[in-house]
Amino acid sequence: MASYKTPLRDMRFVYNELFDPKAIQALPGCEEVTPDLVDAILEEAGKFCEERLFPLNRSGDEEGCHFENGKVTTPAGLKEAYRDFYEMGWGALAADPEYGGQGLPESLSMMVEEIMCSTNFAFSLYPGLTHGAYNALVARASEELKQAYLPNMVAGKWSGSMCLTEPQCGTDLGLIRTKAEPQDDGSYRVTGTKMFITAGEHDLTENIIHLVLARTPDAPKGIKGISLFLVPKIQVNGDGELGQPNGVSCGSIEHKMGINASATCVMNFDDAQGFLVGKLNKGMEAMFIMMNTERLAVGIQGLAIGEAAYQGAVAYARERLQGRALKGPKSPDKPADSLLVHPDVRRMLLIQRAYTEGNRALAGWVATEMDHAHRNPDPRRRQEAEDFVALMTPVVKAFMTDTGSEMANLGVQVFGGHGYIREHGMEQYIRDARIAQIYEGTNGIQAMDLVGRKMPAHMGRYLRRFFHPVRDYLEAKEHDFTMHAFLLPLAKAFGRLQKATAFLAQRGMANPEEAGAAAAEYLRLFGLVALGYLWMRMAEIGLQKRDEDPLFYQAKVDTARFYFERILPQSSALFASIMAGSKCMMKFNDDAF
Amino acid sequence: MASYKTPLRDMRFVYNELFDPKAIQALPGCEEVTPDLVDAILEEAGKFCEERLFPLNRSGDEEGCHFENGKVTTPAGLKEAYRDFYEMGWGALAADPEYGGQGLPESLSMMVEEIMCSTNFAFSLYPGLTHGAYNALVARASEELKQAYLPNMVAGKWSGSMCLTEPQCGTDLGLIRTKAEPQDDGSYRVTGTKMFITAGEHDLTENIIHLVLARTPDAPKGIKGISLFLVPKIQVNGDGELGQPNGVSCGSIEHKMGINASATCVMNFDDAQGFLVGKLNKGMEAMFIMMNTERLAVGIQGLAIGEAAYQGAVAYARERLQGRALKGPKSPDKPADSLLVHPDVRRMLLIQRAYTEGNRALAGWVATEMDHAHRNPDPRRRQEAEDFVALMTPVVKAFMTDTGSEMANLGVQVFGGHGYIREHGMEQYIRDARIAQIYEGTNGIQAMDLVGRKMPAHMGRYLRRFFHPVRDYLEAKEHDFTMHAFLLPLAKAFGRLQKATAFLAQRGMANPEEAGAAAAEYLRLFGLVALGYLWMRMAEIGLQKRDEDPLFYQAKVDTARFYFERILPQSSALFASIMAGSKCMMKFNDDAF
Repeated sequence: MASYKTPLRDMRFVYNELFDPKAIQALPGCEEVTPDLVDAILEEAGKFCEERLFPLNRSGDEEGCHFENGKVTTPAGLKEAYRDFYEMGWGALAADPEYGGQGLPESLSMMVEEIMCSTNFAFSLYPGLTHGAYNALVARASEELKQAYLPNMVAGKWSGSMCLTEPQCGTDLGLIRTKAEPQDDGSYRVTGTKMFITAGEHDLTENIIHLVLARTPDAPKGIKGISLFLVPKIQVNGDGELGQPNGVSCGSIEHKMGINASATCVMNFDDAQGFLVGKLNKGMEAMFIMMNTERLAVGIQGLAIGEAAYQGAVAYARERLQGRALKGPKSPDKPADSLLVHPDVRRMLLIQRAYTEGNRALAGWVATEMDHAHRNPDPRRRQEAEDFVALMTPVVKAFMTDTGSEMANLGVQVFGGHGYIREHGMEQYIRDARIAQIYEGTNGIQAMDLVGRKMPAHMGRYLRRFFHPVRDYLEAKEHDFTMHAFLLPLAKAFGRLQKATAFLAQRGMANPEEAGAAAAEYLRLFGLVALGYLWMRMAEIGLQKRDEDPLFYQAKVDTARFYFERILPQSSALFASIMAGSKCMMKFNDDAF
Repeated sequence: MASYKTPLRDMRFVYNELFDPKAIQALPGCEEVTPDLVDAILEEAGKFCEERLFPLNRSGDEEGCHFENGKVTTPAGLKEAYRDFYEMGWGALAADPEYGGQGLPESLSMMVEEIMCSTNFAFSLYPGLTHGAYNALVARASEELKQAYLPNMVAGKWSGSMCLTEPQCGTDLGLIRTKAEPQDDGSYRVTGTKMFITAGEHDLTENIIHLVLARTPDAPKGIKGISLFLVPKIQVNGDGELGQPNGVSCGSIEHKMGINASATCVMNFDDAQGFLVGKLNKGMEAMFIMMNTERLAVGIQGLAIGEAAYQGAVAYARERLQGRALKGPKSPDKPADSLLVHPDVRRMLLIQRAYTEGNRALAGWVATEMDHAHRNPDPRRRQEAEDFVALMTPVVKAFMTDTGSEMANLGVQVFGGHGYIREHGMEQYIRDARIAQIYEGTNGIQAMDLVGRKMPAHMGRYLRRFFHPVRDYLEAKEHDFTMHAFLLPLAKAFGRLQKATAFLAQRGMANPEEAGAAAAEYLRLFGLVALGYLWMRMAEIGLQKRDEDPLFYQAKVDTARFYFERILPQSSALFASIMAGSKCMMKFNDDAF
């Protein structure tokens, strides 16, 4: 059976030891975020998610959502869990106190998101979408809209959705056809069909606030003629009470590979009352605020599934007795040794562990910078943090979800045949994790975002926010002999990343297909180097503190070794692929496929 | 929607051009296997599978098998398709004419297996298990048992199953508890519970012939006390007619991630009449005849799913209009360009193609050698062929199923969100393919078989059957400048494989955990080099013949280039991981996991 305990020790390590909790506490609005508070929140969140969400994960997958006469019913138990989730305040951690939120830092709330996703990925999408819609509205909606909608969203009474995709367009939103006709009262009438709308319709809340991309009648063609509209499922009266149903209906729900407890809807808008969010024809920019929140959240999903799959696999490997250690029985009194004695099983577990803890560190780094971007009083520090978050968003999204799926697959492999059986819960991780590589921009799109937008932005300014800390750290440790086992391979991999960057910057300028052809491998290389840097720093802490808690800190050092010896070498192969150029792909005859 | 057309052109290329059809035709019993016959069989098999099996693939997945009161009902349509499959002779291609088979070579029947698996993986398991049981019986059963059982199995009236796994043991069959009590009449009474029994119970045939591993009362402990028994579902009278039901019942079926149309059963044997197959306590050896057939067949499953996923992805990439080519619109008259213009989409398709065609070539090579092993009149040639097949069996099983799953995942990725929706049929490939990495010995077990058994066997004799042809070919092409783009990278990767082999042979002797820790990466490296060798040979043919059929042969050359430039570099990373040794894995504290 899959099993899960909140990795509190490792979360505290990332929050308190790898990064600087005092720097977070020094930020405006974070004064009360003491180590004790952080501990208490993580513990309580863990308790709620383990006790209430995890038991619904398998049953929700088996039951799925129901669709009848335009109504969507979520699987048994979800409604009560959702209600209690918000009543206990878990849905409002990062929201602004002005709208009823708790104003806690992202670096803390992201960890709570991880716990929620590990225990129930499908459930997490309902609050997740609401939080994304909240972020876009906070940033771009008029004060009136904010006051009318945000408090109920923060309180969990109303939820949010994100309506981009249409049958003829997913990635290419310039092809959007949904129309928005201006009305005399300043509102719009929205008409069109959206598909793949997560949480588009469900029975968890009394209202659903859709953020809809649409075109006004005279809008320019393509991406520059798209605006963002707030379209409630049920109209909201001037007094803030619910009024008439709006022209919004759910046409059907999809039958999917996974995340079955999450309703994926076809949404029909038929002269629905909508309100412009932000400026006309600037919908993409406004939507990207939401999208970027979501992309980081999706990266966390990869991390979360990796953690859950790892825990399930370790528990099984401990219990399952099968075969004997290659050097002779380890438990001669038992009919067989545990799976843990087998090198190949340890290899799989350590890959999972190295990626999971590495991904958690990476998420922590980005979340910390998000807090600085939002709150630091120094505009220069804010800008630097914003640059870093912009740069790392595609890396977090794609690298952490690709590795998340790999870890889910390893979890099943450790279980052997039992992993393939639904009731054990391990194969669900594969099915659930798979969507994270696709939605909110496929991982191929993330890679293009990295090489095509983030890399060249402001003459490489974003890149420096990553390259400089890594370079400075390597220089600082140059004469530290205790760190040489990490320093040399990291320096080598980092060198490859720098060379690949220069190569793509130069070649991509002349021929964008060169950058496109190498993008996926470049993003992977970027992620590997980022984790290498973080693993070296974690190893350093481990070496310094291993007398304090040998089991924990020695494991950090040993996992870092594993990462450097068995995973980071991939950088050589990726580098070779990148440098091979695009010719072998682009000259391939279309008709020959 | 997923779509499939039998890749006849590529199958003919492998059969007639890459390998030597005349050498097959020269083997005893293969005199009539002319190119025309091969063509006709592939075409007709393709027609049957496309028309009859492919349409049942999605519906069978959705409906799954039903279990009620010990009876298993297969999904709608399977029974009729199964009947016609055997009536048309597709189930008897490789079987001995003595038992009603057509005596065709493995190199041909494996291609038919591929077609069957591409169109309906779950269906293919029913004839597949029967064929495996047939092989074990042909090799080890008494003449009486053969005459009584084989003709009906070959005719498809009766099917077969393979009963190894028990709740407490999968990989570690030494822990088997099922008992077989000898009776006065020479038969046995078999009692015990088996699980994960593919095709253990179903409604396709009037009888099911189980091959069951069990222990006799005084058998030695562990693996050396296991014997193989033939246990029919319904007893067979002396006249060959069906008699009384035997003490065999199905306790339940599993709910699985995929292959839902294939019944995976818990089988209870309760004083069931059974007959010894082969010698007492030599059951593992007899079962391994079946197992080796199955392992190669499982490799073919990986190839087959890869082909199906590739075809689905290419069709979608052609049709789906989304975004514009990076260098400017390719179809300015349309709202967007097709996905085919995007470098990252081409990258995914070419990875699929390079592995699929490479795997087909590898399967063809092994199948050709199987034919020599079974039929060549020269005992030395037979031995060499047997050695080669023994060596390559774990590589085919693990490499082709690992890459099969990777290709299925790429197929979904090309489809984007639509790939995640069940009705499009692409995500089913991931779910179906996933089992192939697990059953018939997990891929970790295959890797251990390669490094622990096959590599050291007879002082490296098996290895030479692969190393010598590769070495000889590289030497022969040393001065052929047209081939240098392939020669140099292959020589490099081959050199890494040789060094890794020497390293493991030496280190593994002193410490078997060193071999165990590197086994998975070593097998992958082995597979990559094998495909590299075959791609270089295919490129050579492509270069020679490209004037004949430029689209086909140029694509061979270009796919080979892609393989050498973008995939084969993985050998460097694998080599580094292998050479890093086992320490970072084995010294990790058990309690710290």
